[in-house]
Amino acid sequence: MAVSKCTRLSGTLIKQTLDSVDSILFDCDGVLWLGDQAIPGASDVINLLKKSGKKVFFVTNNSSKTRKMYADKLKSMGFTVNEDDVFGAAYCLAMYLKNVSKLQGKVYLIGSNAMRQELENVGIQQIGVGPDPISGAQLDWANVPLDSEVKAVVVGFDEHFSYMKLNRAHQYLNNPDCLLVGTNTDTRLPLEGGKAVPGTGCILKAVETAAQRQAQTVGKPNHFMYDCVASQFGLKSDRCLMVGDRLDTDILLGSNCGLKTLLSLTGVSTVEDALAHQTSGCPERLQMVPDYYVDSIADLLPALQG
Amino acid sequence: MAVSKCTRLSGTLIKQTLDSVDSILFDCDGVLWLGDQAIPGASDVINLLKKSGKKVFFVTNNSSKTRKMYADKLKSMGFTVNEDDVFGAAYCLAMYLKNVSKLQGKVYLIGSNAMRQELENVGIQQIGVGPDPISGAQLDWANVPLDSEVKAVVVGFDEHFSYMKLNRAHQYLNNPDCLLVGTNTDTRLPLEGGKAVPGTGCILKAVETAAQRQAQTVGKPNHFMYDCVASQFGLKSDRCLMVGDRLDTDILLGSNCGLKTLLSLTGVSTVEDALAHQTSGCPERLQMVPDYYVDSIADLLPALQG
Repeated sequence: MAVSKCTRLSGTLIKQTLDSVDSILFDCDGVLWLGDQAIPGASDVINLLKKSGKKVFFVTNNSSKTRKMYADKLKSMGFTVNEDDVFGAAYCLAMYLKNVSKLQGKVYLIGSNAMRQELENVGIQQIGVGPDPISGAQLDWANVPLDSEVKAVVVGFDEHFSYMKLNRAHQYLNNPDCLLVGTNTDTRLPLEGGKAVPGTGCILKAVETAAQRQAQTVGKPNHFMYDCVASQFGLKSDRCLMVGDRLDTDILLGSNCGLKTLLSLTGVSTVEDALAHQTSGCPERLQMVPDYYVDSIADLLPALQG
Repeated sequence: MAVSKCTRLSGTLIKQTLDSVDSILFDCDGVLWLGDQAIPGASDVINLLKKSGKKVFFVTNNSSKTRKMYADKLKSMGFTVNEDDVFGAAYCLAMYLKNVSKLQGKVYLIGSNAMRQELENVGIQQIGVGPDPISGAQLDWANVPLDSEVKAVVVGFDEHFSYMKLNRAHQYLNNPDCLLVGTNTDTRLPLEGGKAVPGTGCILKAVETAAQRQAQTVGKPNHFMYDCVASQFGLKSDRCLMVGDRLDTDILLGSNCGLKTLLSLTGVSTVEDALAHQTSGCPERLQMVPDYYVDSIADLLPALQG
């Protein structure tokens, strides 16, 4: 099956491609839903894939939910799902701190309650979630109280992100032994109606700029997120398909890990973006060209219903 | 006077150098003071320079004060100063929007009350200063209310910076005709005791990352700030000395504008930083090597008192 890259997945090629894999990893935002609006047909595709014997996993850089919260959202939209098949950035980050960093100490967390829960699930203490209001008229920014047990600053999506939190992170990171770990570098989160809001990447960039160092990130395109799935479920990379809406995270992760890749045009990236990478002549950018693309994963339905 | 670059300014070289210029531009944070603590001897140096007939200007990227507030702070520390000799980022930004952008419309301002005042002084309306608290449990981030008269997002130092403000800026900047202007890109603000807090550059980087475009900045090293002084006071660049503590803003501004440059080691940059630039072989980095350096501007005192 010699096909050139960035081919529309249609007709008989759909079945050929699905037959060539055992496991399919789906990104969520921009592929299965936009905000709280499901992509039409997405749940049918997932449920039929599972019925046909495929292993299906949900792999998302979004750190605003725990595995359980994702499973609940998926179920409410009609997807058949086990909590253990969900690999969110909050969960993967907790796994990273526990198993890779082997963190001994607390986390200063710029992030959500979901991240707090996932950290607590693996026994890591944290502080920082929620609003951190400015108190006092003439605040002594350089001498804000710090917790001496903090050994890592962790950055995920945080709607309460503020200059106060940026400053606290900066003061903790003055200690070169304090780790800086982020969930992901996505610059925006796609929502309904072509809208978007700033992503974790914007918050992380502010912290990195203050600390003058680069964060370790666990989300896509870093292979850690795939490794979590692969090690727990014994995946073979050449029998996996990665489906996503972003070239610089989903498709790049797939290329980095030797998976087949499928771009869905329901989210951030366009075919034009992919072709620009393909004709760039730049080896790094070629990694972001998907094997296949579809207008929506609903395009897979005919092959599954047949 | 053939002297190699990055020479310690001492002995007879001090008088030679001062004799070769008519005007001296001083950065403030890290040169005249650290936080609210004056650099010992700094006010004597400034006052003696003025007494000896030099024109002295205060040129700062700090946007937290109006010209008047700076003049008051300088006076309280014993400096002889006229408000008209102070060129702060808040004032220069207002001049830029009025005279260069010729802005017709309102500003969405991520910044201080001082910036609000300087904008109002030149007749520009603004919204956004102060806390912007999250109201409601399930906020519809992508549809926050916007003011249709806003034609520019302006970013300066803002202790109330938050995800809400980042999101508003992002939504305004979805309109490609909306300008993005920042005061400066300084990543940190040096304070007493070797401490520092995150600078405007961190906030600006978050907004730039969300908007996926680069801001126009008016502060050092952009020549606009020098142009403001030069045009109002008829300066000749080859008869000017720029004194600062940062290689990437103060010294680079001086190089960009053809001024003589003096690094003071009381703030951010070190001699090692300067030498690393000098030996880099990179033309861009050579622009950040100062002509001279001193441990503190107090080192100029003997030549002025003699």
